[in-house]
Amino acid sequence: MPKIPHRLYLTEDQMPRQWYNLRADMKEQPDPMLNPQTLKPVTEQDLYPIFCEELAHQELDETNRYIDIPEEILEEYMIYRPSPLIRAYNLEKSLDTPAKIYYKFEGNNTSGSHKLNSAIAQAYYAKKQGIKRLTTETGAGQWGTALAEACSYFGLELDVFQVKCSYEQKPFRRAIMEVFDANVTPSPSMTTEAGRKILAENPDTTGSLGCAISEAVEKALTTESCRYVLGSVLNQVLLHQSIIGLESKTAMEILGEYPDIVIGCAGGGSNLGGLIAPFMQDKLTGKANPKILAVEPASCPSLTRGKYAYDFCDTGKVTPLARMYTLGAGFIPAANHAGGLRYHGMSPILSKLYHDGYMQAISVQQTDVFDAAVYFAQKETILPAPESAHAIRAAIDEAIKCREAGEAKTILFGLTGTGYFDMTAYSSHRAKTMQNYIPTDEELEKGFKSLPKIKGIQK
Amino acid sequence: MPKIPHRLYLTEDQMPRQWYNLRADMKEQPDPMLNPQTLKPVTEQDLYPIFCEELAHQELDETNRYIDIPEEILEEYMIYRPSPLIRAYNLEKSLDTPAKIYYKFEGNNTSGSHKLNSAIAQAYYAKKQGIKRLTTETGAGQWGTALAEACSYFGLELDVFQVKCSYEQKPFRRAIMEVFDANVTPSPSMTTEAGRKILAENPDTTGSLGCAISEAVEKALTTESCRYVLGSVLNQVLLHQSIIGLESKTAMEILGEYPDIVIGCAGGGSNLGGLIAPFMQDKLTGKANPKILAVEPASCPSLTRGKYAYDFCDTGKVTPLARMYTLGAGFIPAANHAGGLRYHGMSPILSKLYHDGYMQAISVQQTDVFDAAVYFAQKETILPAPESAHAIRAAIDEAIKCREAGEAKTILFGLTGTGYFDMTAYSSHRAKTMQNYIPTDEELEKGFKSLPKIKGIQK
Repeated sequence: MPKIPHRLYLTEDQMPRQWYNLRADMKEQPDPMLNPQTLKPVTEQDLYPIFCEELAHQELDETNRYIDIPEEILEEYMIYRPSPLIRAYNLEKSLDTPAKIYYKFEGNNTSGSHKLNSAIAQAYYAKKQGIKRLTTETGAGQWGTALAEACSYFGLELDVFQVKCSYEQKPFRRAIMEVFDANVTPSPSMTTEAGRKILAENPDTTGSLGCAISEAVEKALTTESCRYVLGSVLNQVLLHQSIIGLESKTAMEILGEYPDIVIGCAGGGSNLGGLIAPFMQDKLTGKANPKILAVEPASCPSLTRGKYAYDFCDTGKVTPLARMYTLGAGFIPAANHAGGLRYHGMSPILSKLYHDGYMQAISVQQTDVFDAAVYFAQKETILPAPESAHAIRAAIDEAIKCREAGEAKTILFGLTGTGYFDMTAYSSHRAKTMQNYIPTDEELEKGFKSLPKIKGIQK
Repeated sequence: MPKIPHRLYLTEDQMPRQWYNLRADMKEQPDPMLNPQTLKPVTEQDLYPIFCEELAHQELDETNRYIDIPEEILEEYMIYRPSPLIRAYNLEKSLDTPAKIYYKFEGNNTSGSHKLNSAIAQAYYAKKQGIKRLTTETGAGQWGTALAEACSYFGLELDVFQVKCSYEQKPFRRAIMEVFDANVTPSPSMTTEAGRKILAENPDTTGSLGCAISEAVEKALTTESCRYVLGSVLNQVLLHQSIIGLESKTAMEILGEYPDIVIGCAGGGSNLGGLIAPFMQDKLTGKANPKILAVEPASCPSLTRGKYAYDFCDTGKVTPLARMYTLGAGFIPAANHAGGLRYHGMSPILSKLYHDGYMQAISVQQTDVFDAAVYFAQKETILPAPESAHAIRAAIDEAIKCREAGEAKTILFGLTGTGYFDMTAYSSHRAKTMQNYIPTDEELEKGFKSLPKIKGIQK
C-alpha cells in the first residue's frame, strides 16, 4: 500500500475552531461597498434590514484575523465534517504524470457541496437574533439545498428563488429542498416587483442568479422577521468557507506536503475563496508562493473577460454596489449547464486579489469540462458536479504539463460537490448534443452597458 | 463537545485486510444449492459457466473463516472506504431517548450504497480470470451503478438488465451507469428468450429482480468470455459485504461500545448479512448475545410471510435451486418504491440463521418508512435511500421503546445508501399520494404455487 493514505480525515480534535478572515492580511483592502442611495460606504447599520447583525458585522470586518466558530455551529459541522483530503492515485497513474494530485472533497453531505459550511453559519446567526424566516436564491440548487438543511436544523422558515432554467432542468432539486420544508419558487416570478419587472422586459428569460437575488432581497425586505442570505460572493461567505482551506492545509501538513498549485472553480467565489484562504495568507505574508488558479466557464467569464468596476450584485439593482470583476448585472448568461457558476460578478475579495496579481484565472468550455468529469469519475469513482469539473479540467491539464516537463509538482484542487442532479447534462454530453457557448464581444458590451454610472467614481 | 466523536473513520492501518466467512462458525450449514437438472448439490464446476472460478469457490466455501482481501481490491476499497460509523446525536436528542444510536453509513460513494464492496470484488476476480464481459440485473439501480463503476475501473464490458419499473421511475440511474460505459436494458426485454417468455405470459409486467436475473444469466451463458454477477443473496456477496460489519465492530471497539441491537434492511440480504457478520459470530460462538433484527417491506415479506423452501433464484428458472425464505420465484411484487428490496427470496445463509432462531424479522409499511426517512434527514442531514430507511424506521421505534422503558440500549443500524435518485418517491410521500401495499394471503398463495416440486425433497 502507498505510504500516503488515499483519504485523510482529520479527527474532531484536529478540526479548525476558528475561521480565517483573509482581509486581515491583505496589503490593500477591496474597495468599500457603497450604499446605492447615498453612494457612501455602507455601514453595518445600512446592512441590518438585509442581513442579521452578526453577519453584517462579519461582512465589513477587515481587521479580525481569526473568528471563533460558535459551539452550535461546530456541533453541526461535526455532523458531516471533516471532509476528506484525497490523494488521486488512480488519476495520477492514468495520466502517467509525476505530479502529485490532491483534492479536497466537499460533496459528502446531502447538499452535495461545500455550501452547507456557510448555510449553517448564516442560519445560526439568524436564529440567534430571533429571526423567523430567511430568503435566498439558488442556481444549480446546491446552495438552496444546503440552506434548506440548515433552516430545518435550526427551525427557520425558508423561501428559495431558484433560477428558472435550473428549476426546469433539475426537478428533483426542488423535491429535495422540500424534504427540508423549504418553499421553492422559479425565478423570475410574478410574486415580487423585481420579478414582474424583469418578466415584463424579457418574458422568455431563463433567469439568472442576479434576477433571483433581486427577488429574494425584496421578499426579505417586505416580510416580517425575515432576512436575506447569499451563498457566495459576500465576504462573510468566504470567511465561513475558509474551513475548506484550513482543513486542507492541516491535512497536507500532516502528510508533509504543501501545494505548488491550488485550483478552484469560480462562480461567485465561495469555494475558491475558502479553499485558497490559508495558502493566499502564506502568499500575502511571504511565507510561500503557490500558484493560485481560478477556473471559470467560458460562457460566463467574469474574471477573464469582465471589467473591474462597481456594480450591483443583482439584476434588479436593489443591493449595495460592490467593486468586482463583472459582466454587468444586466448580463444574462446562456442557459448552459454550469448552473452554479452562472453569476455576472465575482467576490470583491477575490476580484481585488486577482486585480493585484495574487492569482491567475482561465476559462474553459463546457464540453472540455464534461470530458474531464467523465474521465475523473471513471478513475476516481466520484461523479463530480459540473461546477467542480471546471477545477478537474484545469488540474488534469496542469498534471499533463508536469508530465511533459517532467516536473513532480504538488497540485491541490477543490472538488466542491457531486453531480447526481446533473444527469441531464451528463446525458447530453454523452449524446454529443451538448453546446458550447462563448459570448461575443458585442454580447459582453451589452452587459457592460448595464454598469452603473457613478459621478466621481465610475464613468 | 461530546467525548465520542460524531463520525469515526478508521485509518487505512485499522481497516480489515480479510473478509469474514460466517458459514465457518455456523452450527448447521444452509442446505446445499441443487443443480436443477440433476437435483444433486452443485459442484464448483457446475457453477463455472455462470460464475468465474474464484467466485464459484467462494460460493461453496463453508470452512475458511477468514479470506484475504487481494491487494488490488484493497487498493480500490481505499478510494471510498472506510465508511464512517456515525453517532446519531441529533436523532437521539430529538427522540429524547436514553438509547445510544450508531449507524454505519455506506452511501459516500458514487453508487450511493454498500453495493460497491462486492462489485469491486466480483469484477476483480473476473478480470483476473481473463473474462471480458459481465452481465447483471439491477433493481433500484444501486447495484448496477456500483458494478458499472467497478467494470470501468477494471476495464470490463457490462450489460445491465434493469427492472422495468425502476428504469422508468429513475431515468437518471441509467444515465449514471452510462457515465461508466455500461449498456442498460429495461427488463423484461425482447433481447433474451427468458424475457420474451415472461412478456408473452404477462405483457404488462413492471418486471422484478427475478425476471432480470433470468435475462442476465441467459445473456452470460450465451455470450463469449462472459459471466454473470449478482449483487445480493449469494454467499460470496455476504462474504464481501462482511467488511461493513468488520469495520463497524472495530470502530465500536475503539469507542468502547458494543451493540445491544443490530438492525439492517433486508431485500436479498447483502447489507444485512455484511453488517451483522461479526456480531452474529459472537452470537454463534457464545461471546455475546445482541438482538439482530431484519427489516423488510410489507409489500415483499419473504422472511415474515414466506416459506422456507427450495426455490429458483430467478423467475425464468435457469439458476440453481437454493433453500431460502421465499415468496416463490413467480411472485411479482407491486411496483411500489422499495426498489432494492423487491426480491422474492432471501440469502440462504440468513434464511438458515433466521430459521434456527438467531435473528428476528419485522416488516414495515412504505409510508411509515418515508416518515422515518424525512424525520431522519431533517435531524441528521443525510437523505436516506428508501431501502435504508426501513432500518431507520426500526431503529427509531427501538429508541422510542428505550425511552418508554428508560433503558439506555446501544443500537447499531446500517444506513446502506442515499436517496438522491428516489426523489419521485419522496415527492409522492410529501404529496400524500404514496400507496401502501400488503399482499393478501391469496396473492401469496399464488406465488407459493410457483415453488418447484422436487421428488424426495419438497412436495
